[in-house]
Amino acid sequence: MASMANRITLNCDLGESFGAWKMGEDELIMPHIDMVNLACGFHAADPMTMDRSIKLAEENDLYIGAHPSYPDLMGFGRRSMKCSYEEIENIVLYQLGALDAFCKKHNSRFVYVKPHGALYNDMMNDTGILEAMLRAINAFDKSLMLMVLSSERNDELKKVASKYNGYLLFEAFLDRNYNDDGSLIPRDQENAVIHDADEVLKRIQELREHKYIKSINGKELKFKVDTLCVHGDNKEALEFIKKIRKIVD
Amino acid sequence: MASMANRITLNCDLGESFGAWKMGEDELIMPHIDMVNLACGFHAADPMTMDRSIKLAEENDLYIGAHPSYPDLMGFGRRSMKCSYEEIENIVLYQLGALDAFCKKHNSRFVYVKPHGALYNDMMNDTGILEAMLRAINAFDKSLMLMVLSSERNDELKKVASKYNGYLLFEAFLDRNYNDDGSLIPRDQENAVIHDADEVLKRIQELREHKYIKSINGKELKFKVDTLCVHGDNKEALEFIKKIRKIVD
Amino acid sequence: MASMANRITLNCDLGESFGAWKMGEDELIMPHIDMVNLACGFHAADPMTMDRSIKLAEENDLYIGAHPSYPDLMGFGRRSMKCSYEEIENIVLYQLGALDAFCKKHNSRFVYVKPHGALYNDMMNDTGILEAMLRAINAFDKSLMLMVLSSERNDELKKVASKYNGYLLFEAFLDRNYNDDGSLIPRDQENAVIHDADEVLKRIQELREHKYIKSINGKELKFKVDTLCVHGDNKEALEFIKKIRKIVD
Amino acid sequence: MASMANRITLNCDLGESFGAWKMGEDELIMPHIDMVNLACGFHAADPMTMDRSIKLAEENDLYIGAHPSYPDLMGFGRRSMKCSYEEIENIVLYQLGALDAFCKKHNSRFVYVKPHGALYNDMMNDTGILEAMLRAINAFDKSLMLMVLSSERNDELKKVASKYNGYLLFEAFLDRNYNDDGSLIPRDQENAVIHDADEVLKRIQELREHKYIKSINGKELKFKVDTLCVHGDNKEALEFIKKIRKIVD
Repeated sequence: MASMANRITLNCDLGESFGAWKMGEDELIMPHIDMVNLACGFHAADPMTMDRSIKLAEENDLYIGAHPSYPDLMGFGRRSMKCSYEEIENIVLYQLGALDAFCKKHNSRFVYVKPHGALYNDMMNDTGILEAMLRAINAFDKSLMLMVLSSERNDELKKVASKYNGYLLFEAFLDRNYNDDGSLIPRDQENAVIHDADEVLKRIQELREHKYIKSINGKELKFKVDTLCVHGDNKEALEFIKKIRKIVD
Repeated sequence: MASMANRITLNCDLGESFGAWKMGEDELIMPHIDMVNLACGFHAADPMTMDRSIKLAEENDLYIGAHPSYPDLMGFGRRSMKCSYEEIENIVLYQLGALDAFCKKHNSRFVYVKPHGALYNDMMNDTGILEAMLRAINAFDKSLMLMVLSSERNDELKKVASKYNGYLLFEAFLDRNYNDDGSLIPRDQENAVIHDADEVLKRIQELREHKYIKSINGKELKFKVDTLCVHGDNKEALEFIKKIRKIVD
Repeated sequence: MASMANRITLNCDLGESFGAWKMGEDELIMPHIDMVNLACGFHAADPMTMDRSIKLAEENDLYIGAHPSYPDLMGFGRRSMKCSYEEIENIVLYQLGALDAFCKKHNSRFVYVKPHGALYNDMMNDTGILEAMLRAINAFDKSLMLMVLSSERNDELKKVASKYNGYLLFEAFLDRNYNDDGSLIPRDQENAVIHDADEVLKRIQELREHKYIKSINGKELKFKVDTLCVHGDNKEALEFIKKIRKIVD
Repeated sequence: MASMANRITLNCDLGESFGAWKMGEDELIMPHIDMVNLACGFHAADPMTMDRSIKLAEENDLYIGAHPSYPDLMGFGRRSMKCSYEEIENIVLYQLGALDAFCKKHNSRFVYVKPHGALYNDMMNDTGILEAMLRAINAFDKSLMLMVLSSERNDELKKVASKYNGYLLFEAFLDRNYNDDGSLIPRDQENAVIHDADEVLKRIQELREHKYIKSINGKELKFKVDTLCVHGDNKEALEFIKKIRKIVD
């Protein structure tokens, strides 16, 4: 497992099959990423899938992250659910334990947590949820890192995390357009996603060389980026990841 | 936590509420038992319930056991499901991990596994399932004990367990009638359950003094009994458990 | 089945057991109410429960209503879920069909729809959800009525309903305190619920005689009330309902 | 919709996506079959999928069948579950109602029922389950037909069905090998499935011309075949179905 220090890693949501339904090109994608976010059964993944996913992640020598979600298989964890903070803490804790069991089976371990879908977004908008995540981590394994969206609010989030001695990993989405304040343009807006692959690659190049991300208005956003999120749900994704790989290495 | 050696302990299935639905007199019962079998989310228990249950078990200084099940909330894990052995291994492993997360939160741990309902019965009738249970335990924590039904087959089961270095706890149900071969009379037969409390207490007395259980035909069944299963789902149960407590102590 | 015209009926959420978990004193309560809101499997009720509930409702000669919910058994439908309007329409439609199957089995039918828990609240705050409910009704059976919270917004809601030729039933909660604008004081505020039974009975008396509900500030709120929601989840509820019954009759 | 009389129809299990997970080439396959078996939410399909599936089936002018299952999303309804007959009746009834709601939305209806996976197999091996299916149909809509596996037991099944005035559709699987008694060779045996497409086509030709299916030992099995089951889960399936189409027409 290569060091994560001093370079931008690639992370990807995988392990998202469920029972008879396959999702994601896990076998193809894993050799080309650094960190794999594995579903824990609440938005995707069943015990058989989790078993295979940990095994595959281990074979590819990846940093493994737990990818817990709201309990919503039908909605794939993409629908915000008004849970209490205590519910969120316990829902996350449950999923961390479940994933850990498969790590034990394969003499592996996971080293970070990245909430999935709506839970990720809600965490970025509600400090109470961020704290619930940190409490779940603290209860389970104080050494786990928490992945959050990098933005101008990084210091603010770090301050919250420090209350729990929590360590944050800052993530960027270079196929998404940013507002001037460093927040992502919401998906329901037309210009949320950048579909032009070359444009995305250019932005990654820019980030690597100049340490900034250009906002939708051309503002140079300079915040720490530990890791880039890449997508692995189709075969075209593979070629794209290889190109990104070349740039960040 | 009192030693389990050289005495008959009482174990009880608790922690079986789910969301808004309450089941079991956990607060009343826990002070009077030794071992508590806690649901892990597949037949009963949600993350909030598991959090409360571990906390309560810890306050009552109980031996905690995981009580994993087939994935069947609607059927409360009482319906046999034709899963493959590998599915059973992974389904159980998932649940062990989930329960463990709440143990970690409360600086506790569980020390044995007792499969629930149909999975328990199926394990007693299919060595492949028994081995799947033992593999799940081995993958998770080799020190965990496995609770099984005590019968004339104890040596046979021990032999299977020894292949996995597994340690078995032998359980008896003294409110159930036994066949001459030490198996339980199935629940769908009229004389399966002994409803007369005094009769049950007499049988416990007999077991304690003479080390045997009388079969339905009066045969004296002499097999090892580490623990008795008691029921905790109503308020009357409490008085009954107190009486059993007096006999076994 | 007595006519609903010109009198205040009592409606109650029942049929909310799930598998092995019992909830609600359905047998005791049904003889004393007019309208029963029956769960459809998404927040509570499994097929066996629905079968029993329709049978019981029919024996008690009640107006039956479907009580559909967000898909959230673990949260009992009390947690708001950010579904699209189309998802809500289809989720509700699914549940209407499911309940109807049990009506067919018992030569019965349901005549209105009352969304459950968070879906009810969200419908009152989002016209898009109200329209989704009306579209589901239109798709299924145009003669179904929709139960909503009575407030100063009744005319506004009626106008929306009229676009779909929908008929609204207006419901009041006399054990809840109202704001001056006729909205309910949210449950997370201290004075949301009126716990004093006599006070509640006094309010019902007032409504019957003077056709108003007093707001928290003493303002006389005069809006149409077709039906009062009563609770049936414990044995004490029965005596209370009998007293309410006396007043409204 | 072409008549089903005097010709062999093609039926296919479709509508089996769930939430974010896609399964089946529904759009490609539907134009080439006669009858479509649509999942009802218990082994596959969510309300959004069911909405789309009924719409698509209607556009393709197909006979629609309900495809109810044991409640087992994780196992895709392929695992036998030891439900009581009454549970099966109600589980099926629930699903019939749910599917019907979407038929109503699209001014459509379904005309037959084909149990899915393990429920289908269990129905063929347990007359009690066959009767539970027939009772569910009777409770819901007496005109619905029930699809069963055609075999030497056809008269026996018809006799059971006649008790409920039920009408049976007899189905054959020509990509499966048959025992001499007309039962299918179980899937866990090596020669269960015929993978050679030409061989399958030859068998269909034989059935069409000579009205028999050859058993694994060459015995000519002559029982009524109303419909052939074809598979639609991948793109290759399409070409194969077109070839079958040519033969049966």
